[in-house]
Amino acid sequence: MRVDIDRLLGRLAALAEIGAIEGTEGCARLALTDEDKSGRDLVVTWMRDLDLDISVDGIGNVIGTLAGAVDGPPVMCGSHIDTVRTGGRYDGNLGVLAGLEVIETIKGAGITPPRPLAVGFFTDEEGARFQPDMLGSLVYAGGMALEEALGIEGIDGAIVGEELERIGYAGPAPLPGLVPHAFVELHVEQGPVLEVEGVTIGAVDGVQGISWQEFTITGQSNHAGTTPMSMRRDPGYVATAVATFARELAVDLGHPQVATVGMVEFVPNLVNVVPASATLTVDLRNTDDEVLRQAEQRLAEFVATTSEAEGCVVEVRTLARFEPVIFDPVVVGLVEKTAIDLGFSVKQMPSGAGHDAQMLARMCPTAMVFTPSHNGLSHNPAEYTSPADLQAGADVLLQVMWTLADTTFDH
Amino acid sequence: MRVDIDRLLGRLAALAEIGAIEGTEGCARLALTDEDKSGRDLVVTWMRDLDLDISVDGIGNVIGTLAGAVDGPPVMCGSHIDTVRTGGRYDGNLGVLAGLEVIETIKGAGITPPRPLAVGFFTDEEGARFQPDMLGSLVYAGGMALEEALGIEGIDGAIVGEELERIGYAGPAPLPGLVPHAFVELHVEQGPVLEVEGVTIGAVDGVQGISWQEFTITGQSNHAGTTPMSMRRDPGYVATAVATFARELAVDLGHPQVATVGMVEFVPNLVNVVPASATLTVDLRNTDDEVLRQAEQRLAEFVATTSEAEGCVVEVRTLARFEPVIFDPVVVGLVEKTAIDLGFSVKQMPSGAGHDAQMLARMCPTAMVFTPSHNGLSHNPAEYTSPADLQAGADVLLQVMWTLADTTFDH
Repeated sequence: MRVDIDRLLGRLAALAEIGAIEGTEGCARLALTDEDKSGRDLVVTWMRDLDLDISVDGIGNVIGTLAGAVDGPPVMCGSHIDTVRTGGRYDGNLGVLAGLEVIETIKGAGITPPRPLAVGFFTDEEGARFQPDMLGSLVYAGGMALEEALGIEGIDGAIVGEELERIGYAGPAPLPGLVPHAFVELHVEQGPVLEVEGVTIGAVDGVQGISWQEFTITGQSNHAGTTPMSMRRDPGYVATAVATFARELAVDLGHPQVATVGMVEFVPNLVNVVPASATLTVDLRNTDDEVLRQAEQRLAEFVATTSEAEGCVVEVRTLARFEPVIFDPVVVGLVEKTAIDLGFSVKQMPSGAGHDAQMLARMCPTAMVFTPSHNGLSHNPAEYTSPADLQAGADVLLQVMWTLADTTFDH
Repeated sequence: MRVDIDRLLGRLAALAEIGAIEGTEGCARLALTDEDKSGRDLVVTWMRDLDLDISVDGIGNVIGTLAGAVDGPPVMCGSHIDTVRTGGRYDGNLGVLAGLEVIETIKGAGITPPRPLAVGFFTDEEGARFQPDMLGSLVYAGGMALEEALGIEGIDGAIVGEELERIGYAGPAPLPGLVPHAFVELHVEQGPVLEVEGVTIGAVDGVQGISWQEFTITGQSNHAGTTPMSMRRDPGYVATAVATFARELAVDLGHPQVATVGMVEFVPNLVNVVPASATLTVDLRNTDDEVLRQAEQRLAEFVATTSEAEGCVVEVRTLARFEPVIFDPVVVGLVEKTAIDLGFSVKQMPSGAGHDAQMLARMCPTAMVFTPSHNGLSHNPAEYTSPADLQAGADVLLQVMWTLADTTFDH
């Protein structure tokens, strides 16, 4: 059995028409907007065409299920169809539409899976309109109460609950959701590794732990000409030294440790004035929480020592802290073996970004399948994965789901 | 002879009433505004009270002259009375009002100076409304044609020439102005050195050369989680490494080299995105142009090497470049000797900021006298110099002008 790549590409293109960003291949369907509603309606139409049993829960997650030879929890796949404002057509959408393709292929072959198979899309994965991101899958997995989620206010002042009612996706299915037999998410890598290494399939074994910290350093604003170096208390110097250290730290700790200083702000930010204060963020990620903690500690020590030596004061704010997620080794191994069996190059790798699968991993055996992202681009209309790679990913998803339907897990 | 400190403090306070910033000791009299006009009118009234011969030139510089025993070029002092938006009461004003005090003291002693003595205030020294700064003294010294200066548009759209007409200070005195016999400017240090070292008088031997460069570094924006360190082209890293290097460079080259990174901007400036580009400014200053060039060259090499290693591209823009100004050793020596004779501690030092005196130095033997700035503060309503230090500075100015009036220079 192989998926029909033309049918999959057709659905990706049709969905990308909704909220299309003119002159590009990308689209903008922020969660629970009119564009999101139209995208949802289209995918639901396709689920109906496949005679799936469709459920919509209170946070707007939609799951379509194909009955199996026996009743019970389904093997589920899925992802999200909301996008960022400058979204591509693959991020999220691929995992949902490839799921439909898996089901249509199995139905087309005239066979019944040993267990039910399901494909879902989860609300507001991107977090581009409503924080936090992965909201729908978080509520699905019981990580946040529905009432709390419904009260969240978006960047435009809209309220999740009101928007769900408005677009008609406040459904009756209970939350937390049904615990699947297993969960697999196909997704574009959103990074450069597979393409650079010439590998077709990523067998994703976990999601990096994330530590976001914001440091606000206060010193003494001074005239750039009249203040000798020895009399300065320059928070800008401390901030840039910390940023430079973050790079050295990541290199020293080695792969897969990453460190990013994406935001720096000086006050007053004038050519000839030693700043009064400087703010920077440091984003640290690792799959190993022990190493991540070590990175945090070494950073904290450097920040303290450097600011003290400069006579500056530091305020630290934790913006986010998530422990690494480790996917189920049986499912990860199955992804890897399936790729090899189908003749694709494969590597086990962590995900550097967050995904709905990490929420589902709280409930059931879970893993992800990555396909290459051209130039590592994502959250960008120029996001691209070749048809051959899309087909490879969908074929792996198909075989993995089929095998999982016949697999019993020891819990 | 000593100046009358109470009279001087009274004039400083009266002038600070005009454009006073409520709740502070500071004031705001941007050049050629209504507040500047009122400030000018008050100082001109004081000049008239002293029976000075008053001239106003085409750029609005005002010079009051006391006749001497013989005719000829005057020994001139002066500074400016315009302020920045958050100005103190001493910056500029001190040099002008202490000049009046010198003349009033000499007149009060019933003696006639060997040569004429003059006190002037120059238009738009701060450059806070009209660029460039030191505009009036620049035109006075012949560094810019009057027609060009009159056409300058300010940050509020006003035109220098129109504003001069409006406030009644477009005068008939010719430009470039009369070449003085010598020029001395008393000014607050605007830096911390005198206070930190416990010295009362700075004998200013020159003005640091200034090099302002802006570096715009372009790399590849990427996801902070999914892009391994080895695959990054991070312009933010290059920018912060350059900033850190600038500090090391200044420390390595030693006093009086200073290096300041006052402005840094990342695009898009988000926690979890490797920047697409980063911009920073580097302000380098030294009294020795040879060392300043060396600093520029070492910085350029570091920028080139670091960006290339990171796979980034750099665009360099020179925002300003002024060679150091060296004041007349005879006048500097006279300031130093006078301070010692009067019993004040004194040190020769460069000025890190620009002053009208550096324009006058193109025309005649020139030096400056610095008095301490509390906490090094300036361009700040909290700017403060103690009455004792103000008196010391004005007494040195008095004796230096008197001696210069009796000095012949070999040109």
